[in-house]
This record gives sequence, C-alpha cells and structure tokens, in this order.
Amino acid sequence: MKIEIWSDFACPFCYIGKRRLEIALNNFPHKDNVKIIYKSFELDPNTSLSTDKNIHEIIAGKYGMSVEEAQQANQNIIDQAKEVGLNYDFENLKPTNTFSAHRLAKFAETKGLLAEMTERLLQAYFIEGKIISDHDTLAELASEVGLDKEEVVDVLGSNQYSEIVRGEEREASSLGVQGVPFFVINRKYAVSGAQHPKVFLDTLNKIWEEENKKSPLQTLTPDNSGTTCSTDGCEIPRK
Amino acid sequence: MKIEIWSDFACPFCYIGKRRLEIALNNFPHKDNVKIIYKSFELDPNTSLSTDKNIHEIIAGKYGMSVEEAQQANQNIIDQAKEVGLNYDFENLKPTNTFSAHRLAKFAETKGLLAEMTERLLQAYFIEGKIISDHDTLAELASEVGLDKEEVVDVLGSNQYSEIVRGEEREASSLGVQGVPFFVINRKYAVSGAQHPKVFLDTLNKIWEEENKKSPLQTLTPDNSGTTCSTDGCEIPRK
Repeated sequence: MKIEIWSDFACPFCYIGKRRLEIALNNFPHKDNVKIIYKSFELDPNTSLSTDKNIHEIIAGKYGMSVEEAQQANQNIIDQAKEVGLNYDFENLKPTNTFSAHRLAKFAETKGLLAEMTERLLQAYFIEGKIISDHDTLAELASEVGLDKEEVVDVLGSNQYSEIVRGEEREASSLGVQGVPFFVINRKYAVSGAQHPKVFLDTLNKIWEEENKKSPLQTLTPDNSGTTCSTDGCEIPRK
Repeated sequence: MKIEIWSDFACPFCYIGKRRLEIALNNFPHKDNVKIIYKSFELDPNTSLSTDKNIHEIIAGKYGMSVEEAQQANQNIIDQAKEVGLNYDFENLKPTNTFSAHRLAKFAETKGLLAEMTERLLQAYFIEGKIISDHDTLAELASEVGLDKEEVVDVLGSNQYSEIVRGEEREASSLGVQGVPFFVINRKYAVSGAQHPKVFLDTLNKIWEEENKKSPLQTLTPDNSGTTCSTDGCEIPRK
C-alpha cells in the first residue's frame, strides 16, 4: 500500500494530519506493508523570505479579523496540535517561503531520508521557531538527520530539485488537489485533510479489504445491510 | 450509468429490491442516463419443476423450523413487499425451476423487452401464483409483453439461450456474487441485497459524482470532514 502525502512545511494541519495518520498506522494490522512518500506542495509560492508581521497579524490581515480573533483561531490550532503531542509555538513562528525546504526534502529522498527530513523541517518550523528558508539553518537540520552538510549547501546554492518540486505540484493539480494535507492511496483513493485517526484507520482498512478481495468490484454499502437470497436460502428478515 | 442486476425470479428479495431501486431512481436526477440490464442467476438450478410441498413447508424444512415459524418468516417478507406496493401471495406460490424463465428473459432481451419480461415473470410468480416453468404459461406471459407466442414456444422447446444463461451465472461467480439481488454499477461498484431506497439513492449519487468529477481519484471520506490549508489560507477550526 502506497500513501503519497502532498503537504507544505508551513501548513499547520499537515503536521497535525501527519501525526493523526501515524496514530492510525500504529493500529493498522498491515502497517509493515505501507510505504509513505511525501510530495511537495507550496501553499503560497510567492511568500517572501521574511516579514515584519507575526503569524497573528498575518492571519488577521488574511481573514479580515482582529489580531485578537486571529490569536484565538491560532489557539484552536495549537490545541488541536497538542492533542497529538505537538507543542506548536506560534509566538516564535517565522513565516517564510518553503521552496528551498521542499528542494531539500527531495534531495533527502534520493538518500532515503525523506521521512526524517520532512519530520525535522516541520518540527523546526512549528515548534522551534526556525527560519526554514535560511540555507545555513537547512544545512544544519539536514546534517541532523544524516545528510552531508557540504553537499546540502551545494544543492541549495544551485537550482537542483526545483523542477522535481514543481513537477510534484503540477501532479497535485492534475489530481485535483486544492488543499493540503492530501493523501493519495495506491494512486486510486484520496483522503483530503487532517482527518481524525479513526477515519484514517477505517479508510485504510476499507482500502486494504477492497484491494485484497477476490471480486474486482468495489462495495459501497456496509456488509449484510441488504437482504439477499443465496443458494442456501433467503435471509430470514428480522421484524 | 449502467446497472446490471443479477437476480432470480423465485427470489423474494429480488422483486422487493427491484422496486426499491426503482423508487430510488425516481429521485435520481440522472435517471435518464441509467441503463438497467437484468442478468441470470438461479438460486437453485436443481429445483424440480413441481413439488407437493407449499412454500411454508419448504422453508420449514430448509431452516429446520416449524411450519408456523416458516409462516411467520414468510409473513415478514410479505410485509416488506407490501411496503413497496407488492402483494405477494405465498398461499398460491408455485415453487419451481426458473431456468426456462431465464432463457425466455434472455430471448426477450434480443427484442428489447428484457425489462418488461422480467417484471412480468416476477409478478406471475409472486403475485399471481403462476407456474413459471410451464412453457404454455411462459408463452402467454411473453405474448402479453409483446413477444411472438409461436416464436417463444420454439425457443423454449429448443435449448436456445441456455448457454447465455449459464454464461451470466459464471460471470456472477467471477464477480464474487454469492447472493441476489446483486447490483453492479459501471462494472466497477457493487451493491448487494435489497437495500432501502435511500441507500440506493445515496450510492447512485456518490457513484455519479465519482465518475463525473475531474480527479481520477476516489474520495472515501465525506467532503470537508478533514481540516486543510489551501492557497486561500487554512480553515479556521471551530471550537
């Protein structure tokens, strides 16, 4: 089972959704048969590298609300993050452009470290208040997960992996992705948004059943919800 | 949208399921784009042409219950049939082999009268107490829906359409059909059993949406059930 996850490092629900999926996977009996691949998606490719506004002011401006209302909305996100063990620090968050971070993740993928790099970048952004467009910061984070620092500096200083990031973004568009996180399973099924672990788990179980059953058809109704007759006779309907 | 329905003429839930689907279709906005094809399925190919037992005795014997219990079970089916306007007459029912009736339906299909012949045979069996293996009875029913009586007598007297009936039964087997009615939509989705009209309608709407949306992916979770971030910003979570 292949799960491709389109997400952005500056997307609060992506990190929450990642954790919720992980909780579901821990209860999924076929966890060992699941391969997860993170794909690039930028919420706003035009975001500048730095801003003199904090995240509350940015949100307030975006939604036309007061800074206090934005703080409350952000607090709701913080609360949701906390529920899955993530301590978001919005006071120290550094809104920035994530293109370089995506390029770094795609480089990490070539070394088998995509999952580790993705987790490290999300943590740096949402919990540690790091500037995840700064090349030195990125190189430091990369070396922490086992990449060669010098090599990372070279990659980031070039335009390597730019086309791969853009390609994955085009792919998202062709799949109809309008928001992230967006989960594509076996290139056949889609789950949109940071669903609760139970929804993820039910969905994984359903897909596993669908993909491993003998019939080529997909069943859309719950088992035994409609009365049938078989060669053994008809179901005796209950009053 | 193509709906293939595997069913037997001697299957009480098949007729009930047929009506329930029809109720759903009357509320389905794309009804005019739906083509229905009835496929052959015999619950018991070894059923004899006639028996000296009535349906209550047969059911009692099959399930190891008393005749009174069987009558009660059958009464439940009668009640379900009545809910969709069908007046089942189990007192006058003539249990019999349905192979000839299936062959007749397949012949009717070649004349564009499959739906009419199917409905007529179900009505004859469940409501009118007709012996639907008797060739004269079948010829009479066939002529009522517009088939040529002499031609029908010739068809029934030969083994024409036997291989077609058997082929459809093998097809059912290959699709994993274990009981009827069994509904296959666009050779992709399956609905098993006499579902309630609302289940049929929801399923038809869901499939229509799936088949007509731009994304090649199938969405398994309800719309907007998971929080996302898009280029317009993140959803403001409600407390």
